[in-house]
Amino acid sequence: MTLLDAPHLVHVPLGARAYDVHIGRHLLADTGRLIEQRLGQRRWLIVADAALRQTPHLERLERALDAPVFEVPSGETAKSLDGYAALMERLLAARPDRHSAIVAVGGGVVGDLAGFAAATLLRGVPYVQVPTTLLAQVDSSVGGKTGVNSARGKNLIGAFHQPALVLADLGTLGTLPARELRAGYAEVVKYGLLGDAAFFRWLEANGKRALEGDVEALHHVVATAVAAKARIVAADEEEREDHRALLNLGHTFAHAYEGLTGYSERLLHGEAVALGLLQAFRLSQRLGLCTADDAERVEAHLAAAGLATAPNQIGRFAADDVLDAMRADKKAQGGRLAFILVRRIGDAFVSREVPESVLLDHLRSNA
Amino acid sequence: MTLLDAPHLVHVPLGARAYDVHIGRHLLADTGRLIEQRLGQRRWLIVADAALRQTPHLERLERALDAPVFEVPSGETAKSLDGYAALMERLLAARPDRHSAIVAVGGGVVGDLAGFAAATLLRGVPYVQVPTTLLAQVDSSVGGKTGVNSARGKNLIGAFHQPALVLADLGTLGTLPARELRAGYAEVVKYGLLGDAAFFRWLEANGKRALEGDVEALHHVVATAVAAKARIVAADEEEREDHRALLNLGHTFAHAYEGLTGYSERLLHGEAVALGLLQAFRLSQRLGLCTADDAERVEAHLAAAGLATAPNQIGRFAADDVLDAMRADKKAQGGRLAFILVRRIGDAFVSREVPESVLLDHLRSNA
Repeated sequence: MTLLDAPHLVHVPLGARAYDVHIGRHLLADTGRLIEQRLGQRRWLIVADAALRQTPHLERLERALDAPVFEVPSGETAKSLDGYAALMERLLAARPDRHSAIVAVGGGVVGDLAGFAAATLLRGVPYVQVPTTLLAQVDSSVGGKTGVNSARGKNLIGAFHQPALVLADLGTLGTLPARELRAGYAEVVKYGLLGDAAFFRWLEANGKRALEGDVEALHHVVATAVAAKARIVAADEEEREDHRALLNLGHTFAHAYEGLTGYSERLLHGEAVALGLLQAFRLSQRLGLCTADDAERVEAHLAAAGLATAPNQIGRFAADDVLDAMRADKKAQGGRLAFILVRRIGDAFVSREVPESVLLDHLRSNA
Repeated sequence: MTLLDAPHLVHVPLGARAYDVHIGRHLLADTGRLIEQRLGQRRWLIVADAALRQTPHLERLERALDAPVFEVPSGETAKSLDGYAALMERLLAARPDRHSAIVAVGGGVVGDLAGFAAATLLRGVPYVQVPTTLLAQVDSSVGGKTGVNSARGKNLIGAFHQPALVLADLGTLGTLPARELRAGYAEVVKYGLLGDAAFFRWLEANGKRALEGDVEALHHVVATAVAAKARIVAADEEEREDHRALLNLGHTFAHAYEGLTGYSERLLHGEAVALGLLQAFRLSQRLGLCTADDAERVEAHLAAAGLATAPNQIGRFAADDVLDAMRADKKAQGGRLAFILVRRIGDAFVSREVPESVLLDHLRSNA
């Protein structure tokens, strides 16, 4: 596969809710045309990460759409019931009607929050995702999961509401802090690990170029990840079967670590996912499911990308606290924890059968 | 049509989201069986109007389902973003999972709030409506409109989320205050006025018996209203066309009066609808669309039911304030107000063409 194979447009085939993900370098300037082509003339309400005021992107979009901007604070704390309530009242003050539509500009936090606002404003208005972080481009902007965190855990409040369009402008990644690019890269690695060994090999050889901001490498990374996500979402839109759950590889661990660090800057979501990916391999290894070699390849690649691979690089996490945090997560069904385990790189599956004693032993020796 | 024609079960045909409305006298005792028959074994979370503690109904249900009860305060103020946030955190503290389901017990406020909670808890869990007011039985429990009020207006935040089952136990109406029964009766009258002249004639002859608590008359009233609502909802589930909008007969006025009285006990929703129904006829009469005779029949019937028919029986409403409140309502699309007007009793239609000058004249002379 050469870089030229990377598509510029990925279709997410969901019947009446189908939509396209555009991937390219100079999409923002063209936003007005692309959005109106899809949704017609609308009253646009731009919801944007306030940090984008430091970049040229937001102003470019504001001018292209001639629409009001509702800034939300950066960081996971904006994705709360309080943040949601405040945003809703501000949006309603602009007197939207059923011909209004939301344009979400920023990372996963803004996309999830603005998407939930779109899902519930006047019982639902369309929205467009304009992801400006690698994490949002490869994962959260596609698939229609929207919502906010509760005091009890992450993403416990929300709705499925598919975007009408996703515009992934690779140019926005150029202004992204290196730490955020690395965090997003963990979700990229996830797609290789859960179902595409060839892509993981490609990342081992070329991932460094993407992390250095090489646009062709980033194009391949985003297009491959989005295509994988589109296939999975199309097969299981609302995660009723175990198909879509594979996207949670590493996430049962990740959500626990994020909860225990208060969803703070101490540990970004993607960084937590990196920890979780390796934990999923180490737990699978402990259960005799995959080889130590595979787990070590994963650890080596994440470390080479500059990502922490051991929880104690972040802080001290008692095994019992991690287990408690996992139990509070919504993936705990009927009291049983769900894990995505692996047979090898590129072959993941859902298990609700991990014995608690094995899990605790694992957590104690991988703190 | 005799009373014996009244069905005990109304089907709402919405494909994968289809459900039944059971109407009867002793359903509460049978709730466990009826709900499990439909949804299987679940972890039930009962969300109930706190006022039901004064009746035998809630305890009966609690025992039938062996489930925790989350009480919410009576009255429209519970249906706010604050009330929603508080309820979500309480529900999440019970660690629900994707096999949990909500049972909403009470009037329209609880049904709308609990339905919105169900729509957004863990991105959506099933729910059952157990309406215990006439208004909720004939209107709000059927059709999947859920949500809360904003500081900017009523029902501006919410989602379409159909219940899995509706249990309308006529026995619960026996403990309903007379004022609430009258308020719900306004929504009953609405169904006659918007599309069923024969039903309105039946109400002119028999409505008094329903208001006196006669169970056979109430059965006919609830079954007829629910069947009408089911037909309309099936034709236009998410109010994309004007079909479902007919259910808003009187509501553009009603929401304005409710807003101006602060959604308070001064004016119940159904009482506001009664005011609005007559205003819709008087406005239609002013526009030369219907006869004064029809408007007077409506006024006479609402008055006979003990409902206020003139806004000044409630308070002083300046025409400009009413117009402003209407403009804030979500039915104002692209700045144009939508009204349901009538050609005659039983023949309503949507209009976005009411000249503002005519509306203002109308409001000034009907204050």
